Amino acid sequence: MGFFSKDIKTMDDLFVHTLRDIYYAENQIVKALPKMVEKATNPQLKSDFSKHLTETEGHILRLEEVFKLHGAKAKQVTCPAIDGILTEADEIAGDIADKEVLDAGLIAAAQAVEHYEITRYGTLVAWAKLLGRADCASVLSKTLAEEHNADSKLTKLAESKVNLQAAE
Amino acid sequence: MGFFSKDIKTMDDLFVHTLRDIYYAENQIVKALPKMVEKATNPQLKSDFSKHLTETEGHILRLEEVFKLHGAKAKQVTCPAIDGILTEADEIAGDIADKEVLDAGLIAAAQAVEHYEITRYGTLVAWAKLLGRADCASVLSKTLAEEHNADSKLTKLAESKVNLQAAE
Repeated sequence: MGFFSKDIKTMDDLFVHTLRDIYYAENQIVKALPKMVEKATNPQLKSDFSKHLTETEGHILRLEEVFKLHGAKAKQVTCPAIDGILTEADEIAGDIADKEVLDAGLIAAAQAVEHYEITRYGTLVAWAKLLGRADCASVLSKTLAEEHNADSKLTKLAESKVNLQAAE
Repeated sequence: MGFFSKDIKTMDDLFVHTLRDIYYAENQIVKALPKMVEKATNPQLKSDFSKHLTETEGHILRLEEVFKLHGAKAKQVTCPAIDGILTEADEIAGDIADKEVLDAGLIAAAQAVEHYEITRYGTLVAWAKLLGRADCASVLSKTLAEEHNADSKLTKLAESKVNLQAAE
């Protein structure tokens, strides 16, 4: 976590710590997404993953903006949650023999990532408002909306095409 | 993951594998929740965590029912995602000095757990329907609704009380 024991004393400390946690997470996601683009077979899924990679690069820039606005150093603290979620995504992808079933598995894995980000950004927006940082909350809200949108797009693609092809 | 390489060939295999993943996760959550009850200071939060422990025990029974309905052996496969999420929850709790800030941190950690479960049960309900298992989908939907409800309750408690006390 990068902090010494009991180093978080205030909500401001917790806010900054959580920013650094998701900053690490976004950087790990940027490394993982190209592998998911490569593994996906459905052209729409490949394209959605590629677009989300570009969005994720934007999320990193937004986090750097928030660090700047808040006067905190932009640094990463290891986030075991995203490491576990991405390890699981990698393992499941390696375990699936059929390409269409793999697409369904990749969507489920990507949605686990999205949900982790949704919960963290949701919390960060609430804490930013609490700390009187409407400016930070506004920037973080943009990313939160994009994560919700990415998750919904994956649900639609799964239900309209990928799952049906995988079950044939 | 408990499967040999490329051992998932069909959507049915993937469904059963994911059931075993969340079965492991629920069992880990049952072990983690008593520690969260103990660490929480706000009485409402303590009570919500306790109630969710009882609910989680019910989710395990429901999963055993789904395994039975589907004719698959109820077994667990290691789920690195929940391990990572729970490790992170434990680390953050150990890093926070102030009791009220700790409550806010515990809520955020619990919501990360809820969101992991929401994404997995959401996927499982969709896959159960796809596989013609309306019976399994119905059982899994009950748990999904409880996870959504637990998450909403935590948001309300955070925004109405815990975060305000933590920021004082």
